Amino acid sequence: MGDVPGVLWSPASAGPAPLVLMGHGGGADKRHRAMVGRARLLVTRCGFHAAVIDAPGHGDRPRSAQDEADVAALRRAQAAGSPEAPVVVPYNVRLAEQAVPEYRATLDALQELPEIGPGGPVGYVGLGLGMAIGMPLVAAEPRITAAVFGMTWPDALFEAARRITVPVEFALHWDSGRIPREASLALFDAFGSAEKSLHAHAGEHVAWHLVEADSATRFFARHLSPA
Amino acid sequence: MGDVPGVLWSPASAGPAPLVLMGHGGGADKRHRAMVGRARLLVTRCGFHAAVIDAPGHGDRPRSAQDEADVAALRRAQAAGSPEAPVVVPYNVRLAEQAVPEYRATLDALQELPEIGPGGPVGYVGLGLGMAIGMPLVAAEPRITAAVFGMTWPDALFEAARRITVPVEFALHWDSGRIPREASLALFDAFGSAEKSLHAHAGEHVAWHLVEADSATRFFARHLSPA
Repeated sequence: MGDVPGVLWSPASAGPAPLVLMGHGGGADKRHRAMVGRARLLVTRCGFHAAVIDAPGHGDRPRSAQDEADVAALRRAQAAGSPEAPVVVPYNVRLAEQAVPEYRATLDALQELPEIGPGGPVGYVGLGLGMAIGMPLVAAEPRITAAVFGMTWPDALFEAARRITVPVEFALHWDSGRIPREASLALFDAFGSAEKSLHAHAGEHVAWHLVEADSATRFFARHLSPA
Repeated sequence: MGDVPGVLWSPASAGPAPLVLMGHGGGADKRHRAMVGRARLLVTRCGFHAAVIDAPGHGDRPRSAQDEADVAALRRAQAAGSPEAPVVVPYNVRLAEQAVPEYRATLDALQELPEIGPGGPVGYVGLGLGMAIGMPLVAAEPRITAAVFGMTWPDALFEAARRITVPVEFALHWDSGRIPREASLALFDAFGSAEKSLHAHAGEHVAWHLVEADSATRFFARHLSPA
């Protein structure tokens, strides 16, 4: 995918199939188990392709001095128990500005593959940093026609939300001690999508992200499967 | 089910299996397609039993003069475009006071059947009137260990919500012109359950009730299936 390392998971069957672009969380990378797990669901249950690239300064990509400084500042805020948003939000905005064109170039390259092809259905799923990158991406990229987001600070994302009009599934933690609930609900309200669903979970039961991965797979099956 | 007409759908396989009690919506009855559809999912996908009884004054049950008066008042409010809650809320409270003991007696009777048996897992699902009846039922009935609710006026249900501690899935319409969003979110917050999920949908896409019925089936499969 150009000079950005990524992974593409594809079904065994030949012939063009829908593609879901994925974005990994902050501090994770393209081979995080959440990416592998979601890709497995999309490939084996839906017969879709799934692709992810490393975010700037993540995975196999070099970290700039600015990356190192931002991560160090985040670790200091977390260690001090002080608010993360003042550090995470501008950090994620900076990463998104770099990552959005990288994802669009990745999509260009993927659509040149015969097993994907141009003009086919494309979705996007990303939580955390994957949402911070994915919202401006989906707002800017008309080829993406369905998206699943969740679990990041909404502060810098309202303008993108208003520009997003494709079907959206949005997950949040009802009792997150880190991300203000009211702001997340306001962000959900701000999406321009005529069709949008909010999934809010309380409690730390381990099953819930698996439940959401399952739900997201069904969401993409509904919205991306050829009629 | 005593003198209250109801329907029990059961899997072909013998042997005790979990039971899901269902509550139909206002103006509907035990054979409404939503009941038949949910029962089919629970029986065929999970191998569970599903049962529903007619609410007081609904289906095959006689309507009292008070029922007739309440329904007429509701129709007048709807025709006049005036708020429904002042009519619906006390009407549903009255129906719930009668229906809760009916559901508990129904559960007693069903647990005497060999294919259900005593002490097995029991769930409840109800939207609209089925939620107005189901919340005080689940708050009072320790045999019910998982519940799905949604789509009614929360006004009279906060006390029951605080007493409910079992896993809950709660569905609401984000842009309902009839049920205030903030009150519904406050009700979700009031549930005493350590594990609860809110599903809020915007837009009138026809698929969403089917999506929620599918989600509820998976919720019961997770929470009621024998380990």
